[in-house]
Amino acid sequence: MSAFASHDSATKQSAGNAITAEDIAGSGGKASEPVAQYALRLGDDSLMLAQRLGWWISRAPELEEDIALGNIALDMVGHARFLLTYAGSAWGKSEDDLAYFRDEEEFRSVRLVEQENGDFGQTIARQLLFSFYQYELYSALQSSQDQTLAAIADKAVKEVEYHQDHAAQWILRLGLGTDESKRRIQEGLYYMWPYLDELFADEPLHDELEGIAVRPSTLRENTMKRIAVRPSTLRENTMKRIEALLAEAELEVPKVTQARLSDAPRDGEYSEYRGYILAEMQSLARKHPGAKW
Amino acid sequence: MSAFASHDSATKQSAGNAITAEDIAGSGGKASEPVAQYALRLGDDSLMLAQRLGWWISRAPELEEDIALGNIALDMVGHARFLLTYAGSAWGKSEDDLAYFRDEEEFRSVRLVEQENGDFGQTIARQLLFSFYQYELYSALQSSQDQTLAAIADKAVKEVEYHQDHAAQWILRLGLGTDESKRRIQEGLYYMWPYLDELFADEPLHDELEGIAVRPSTLRENTMKRIAVRPSTLRENTMKRIEALLAEAELEVPKVTQARLSDAPRDGEYSEYRGYILAEMQSLARKHPGAKW
Repeated sequence: MSAFASHDSATKQSAGNAITAEDIAGSGGKASEPVAQYALRLGDDSLMLAQRLGWWISRAPELEEDIALGNIALDMVGHARFLLTYAGSAWGKSEDDLAYFRDEEEFRSVRLVEQENGDFGQTIARQLLFSFYQYELYSALQSSQDQTLAAIADKAVKEVEYHQDHAAQWILRLGLGTDESKRRIQEGLYYMWPYLDELFADEPLHDELEGIAVRPSTLRENTMKRIAVRPSTLRENTMKRIEALLAEAELEVPKVTQARLSDAPRDGEYSEYRGYILAEMQSLARKHPGAKW
Repeated sequence: MSAFASHDSATKQSAGNAITAEDIAGSGGKASEPVAQYALRLGDDSLMLAQRLGWWISRAPELEEDIALGNIALDMVGHARFLLTYAGSAWGKSEDDLAYFRDEEEFRSVRLVEQENGDFGQTIARQLLFSFYQYELYSALQSSQDQTLAAIADKAVKEVEYHQDHAAQWILRLGLGTDESKRRIQEGLYYMWPYLDELFADEPLHDELEGIAVRPSTLRENTMKRIAVRPSTLRENTMKRIEALLAEAELEVPKVTQARLSDAPRDGEYSEYRGYILAEMQSLARKHPGAKW
């Protein structure tokens, strides 16, 4: 994966004037309640996936991959910081308050990002679905009428483009590799596929955020309000590119039933794994609450 | 720690023409046996510390620190890749062969980098000692007569400079913070201090690498050969700056006995932790040896 070999030092400061979490915290710009709820959803997705990917650091089968997955995890924490900082501005809470001091049922992440790493094929299948989705999401969010969300999306999409390339290169390498590699990535795809619907499920929240949020659903199955909306191409754009890649990699598009969705997708069901992820992530901060030592 | 807030995306490719592990692997340049042994020592130090630091990803008490320690860990894996690739050129082995398929007693890391993370103060104490040492080491190694080692050092020292800043900022923050923070960082320093001597211990190897390796010891206690050597300022430069920082942070320079050194420091003793670190790091690669799936 030579695209990741000559990465910059991760600790170098950005030379440009890209947005930082401190900028958001210090700007005094306060998110409205629905904008905060929306930012929370996107931030929680990134945070949860970062926890999952971080597990691979020191455990990947190649040093190069160790670095690649680690870098992706850190990019995701970075995005989560922006989004949670902005969400927290509505409630007088910091990114750390939101990351470390919410309980299981207060997170708003989708089940896809919480799924187990499994073998490397399973992790890459999740990366494929989520990075392609997130690339389309952030591309569209760059035109949000909310300037802060647009700025966050603008920065994040450049990084997600690399995550997407990383996933695509592995899909091709595994799909066109050995029988064993093909079998494993195909199994990974079957495992992750049922969680796609939730990525594209509307919530009533989206009706309040026309022109601000990216509407998840093409068909608006979940909303009853009659308001003028721009039709969403999020699912179509995402799936078209995923399916084209799978065809190139000689892999099947899984035919599986989608996991059941509640009426309030991100408010209701969540995976049985969330509690374990949070236990690991939150234990230290909770042991020393507010400790600025 | 605002110095780390606006870091570049870790997945971005370097714009410059910095050295990569692939360059080293593809250059056909073959390290001599003593140069390979030397590169192995430096690479193992970085690799082991990276494993230790990687543990903090998803567990740090702040999201910002999660990213900072994660970035440092990934930089260290990057340095290890260069050094192990170069070492392996002497023996027809890849970086991954050396990382995943050597046994406990074949690693050459110092005990300092293998010490437990402990609380955050203990981890920062280790970061202080190691990053200040490594900064001086790589600064001197930039003038190595071995062009590959010089190029690796040239790239690495720029990153280590940030690791050093990170450690220094925390030492000041904890030392000048609360009674509790001061107590904890002071305890961390006591815990790590006994492993300093090993960083500055000569081996017979260094006599074969005059002008190529950075001689660890000022006084050459461990070598009996009478050859012309340039006096090393590694220890003096490292400790002078560490002690100045501790004074500024109102912390004590620990007065503790140094851990016992065998006659062949890096060949002999190693910490009881090494096996656990390797078990985690190597299990996946060993489960699927040579699996290119």
